Amino acid sequence: MDGTGDFDHYPISEQIVGAQLGDRWVSAAWSDGLISRFHHVWLRDNCPCAACVHQGTREQTFELLDIPPDPMPSSAQATGNALVVTWPDGHVSVFHAGWLRAHGYDTPSAASARTLWDASTLAAPPAFDGPAVLADDGALYEWLIALRTYGATLLHHVPCTDSAVGDVASRIGIVRETNFGVLWDVWSEPDPVTNANTSLPLPPHVDLPTREYQPGLQLLHCVENEASGGLSILIDGFRVAAALRERHPEHFATLTTVGWNWANRSKTTDYRWTAPLIVTDHTGEVVEVRAGNWLRAPLVDAPFDQVEAAYAAYRAFFALTYEPEFAVTFRLEPGDLMAFDNRRILHARGAFTDPPGEHRRRHLRGCYTERDELHSRIRMLERARRASAAHANL
Amino acid sequence: MDGTGDFDHYPISEQIVGAQLGDRWVSAAWSDGLISRFHHVWLRDNCPCAACVHQGTREQTFELLDIPPDPMPSSAQATGNALVVTWPDGHVSVFHAGWLRAHGYDTPSAASARTLWDASTLAAPPAFDGPAVLADDGALYEWLIALRTYGATLLHHVPCTDSAVGDVASRIGIVRETNFGVLWDVWSEPDPVTNANTSLPLPPHVDLPTREYQPGLQLLHCVENEASGGLSILIDGFRVAAALRERHPEHFATLTTVGWNWANRSKTTDYRWTAPLIVTDHTGEVVEVRAGNWLRAPLVDAPFDQVEAAYAAYRAFFALTYEPEFAVTFRLEPGDLMAFDNRRILHARGAFTDPPGEHRRRHLRGCYTERDELHSRIRMLERARRASAAHANL
Repeated sequence: MDGTGDFDHYPISEQIVGAQLGDRWVSAAWSDGLISRFHHVWLRDNCPCAACVHQGTREQTFELLDIPPDPMPSSAQATGNALVVTWPDGHVSVFHAGWLRAHGYDTPSAASARTLWDASTLAAPPAFDGPAVLADDGALYEWLIALRTYGATLLHHVPCTDSAVGDVASRIGIVRETNFGVLWDVWSEPDPVTNANTSLPLPPHVDLPTREYQPGLQLLHCVENEASGGLSILIDGFRVAAALRERHPEHFATLTTVGWNWANRSKTTDYRWTAPLIVTDHTGEVVEVRAGNWLRAPLVDAPFDQVEAAYAAYRAFFALTYEPEFAVTFRLEPGDLMAFDNRRILHARGAFTDPPGEHRRRHLRGCYTERDELHSRIRMLERARRASAAHANL
Repeated sequence: MDGTGDFDHYPISEQIVGAQLGDRWVSAAWSDGLISRFHHVWLRDNCPCAACVHQGTREQTFELLDIPPDPMPSSAQATGNALVVTWPDGHVSVFHAGWLRAHGYDTPSAASARTLWDASTLAAPPAFDGPAVLADDGALYEWLIALRTYGATLLHHVPCTDSAVGDVASRIGIVRETNFGVLWDVWSEPDPVTNANTSLPLPPHVDLPTREYQPGLQLLHCVENEASGGLSILIDGFRVAAALRERHPEHFATLTTVGWNWANRSKTTDYRWTAPLIVTDHTGEVVEVRAGNWLRAPLVDAPFDQVEAAYAAYRAFFALTYEPEFAVTFRLEPGDLMAFDNRRILHARGAFTDPPGEHRRRHLRGCYTERDELHSRIRMLERARRASAAHANL
């Protein structure tokens, strides 16, 4: 153990130069002048000692219910590289300065990692080189940061093979299997099981709004494109939600509180879910949009007297998605791969026409993974950088 | 097409004996005296004709934005087996009586499919025969209904092989792979990567609270048990949440609005998520609990002035889980398989001791799948029953 509660690296950039024990918290003074307050119960809960955290797994064994409520330290001392807190029962908690600085919660954290966009601020999805992303962790990192920030990215020059989209996804993490399989095809078929596999236009949608958990990330790789038409459209659903919130707050309120019904139509599965079109989290932030005209089921879970309001709000949201203000349009060429946040970005395509007498000549190959995998990969790449830096400083 | 918008079967139990066109809705009168109202926009949206629904996929091609808002029928007629609605542009929508009856939304739907329980109402998880569930769809259906209702079930006599838990899960649907793999082992190891794989007690928890999407279902199959101790405990987290809501509404409010931090500690992955301990949906219903003492990260995303309240509420919730009132305790024997809703049911185990000098003699094998898969399978089994009945009535 290096004295911290996990496996990450916490360089000490500032020393702890003072500690003051208050009634409810300890105030730590840093060498750069910052003062951070840590509640007593927080400090006791996060004690990293060998009695409180398993040495091998670095997972907590101490439980809050092991001690009486409202623990009160008997002393708190700054030692430069650590804050040392002693408890009345003799237990001593030593907090590493680098770790403690990284876990300060006294002031709200900085800006969101997310940048909303529309056609005026993003002419095209940020594009990266596929082979570089496949081979190099630095290139991978740049791509993933863009994916986290904008929710939509393009890779070029991805090899036009059936397995490539899975290879790219595996650079992020575990691929999510669904009833479509692990990797699946989008093309116009003579006997389609979904409108996606016709040559019809697909209005703005996310994939699998019929599931409790819509996939967090989607990858669509253009393996071949001999069709005319079929332009691809991406829309930042969170940006549209923000515009709706500003322009039509009553419709925004309806879409966050009235559940819509969603259902797949299939001979072999019957997935359905009821959820609002826009989901906000416990802080009020928009965290999910759910859309897909051909996957809507008859609206049966809305209260009778809210049905018309639900339809009006639905109409207002999708009217915005058809405004050129929000949509980025482009043609996928062989080797292009779109990767996007499937719970944030709406995607759409125009109708297309295969060459005469042919099918399947506009061929996309896709798969799903999760936002969790993206975030974990970003953190692991950053951890590796910190480990390198720590090693270089030895 | 049988005149409905999907692939299910809708026996006509009641005739439509009257239709009245109102300003905002059509009132349909049924042969049993029921009156159901359907808003005009709802009827237009759900037209099942070949111009509105793709014949092969049964997915909608009509879009609301294709027509002006507030559609008004020119007539509505009852024909016994159908409701026929004509629109001013000549479009005709024919609603099948069986389908329409099944999709009435005029009155709120009946009771929840879920029954909350505690130790006084459920002495042990409902138990079923593993080989029957593996072989017979009727037995499968009984098991799945219990799993949906109580969130926790047991199977007995499941073959003690390494693949059996996957075979059982496949009776439900697609297994969810995680960083633990597709199927994984729980046993005491000399060099564990998680507290689960020690012989330590595990306090009440769900698996993977570190993920945006906690797995919806967990299966744990006891392949071997030569250990002393290690009793299994199941607690209905939704029941505990209901008790907290009643006894300590202020703590309930805190746990639904303050996000806790969760993190795995691993050398190879870094999953983290911030979410309330209790999640309510757009209707106010509890839909998720998130718990796991050793997977909590330092609380850094709560506002500074809510940290003590967050700790007090956390303590109150877990104090309830330690009340014998809520916990069902039993010993897993070889061949037993626990299946439970991992976002509803908390599971725990006592400390155990392998036989002297041995490891891995209490061996559980597990996997995850999703509530979506459970619900889809139940619907498909019910659809098959309806298809058989429809066939028998021909």
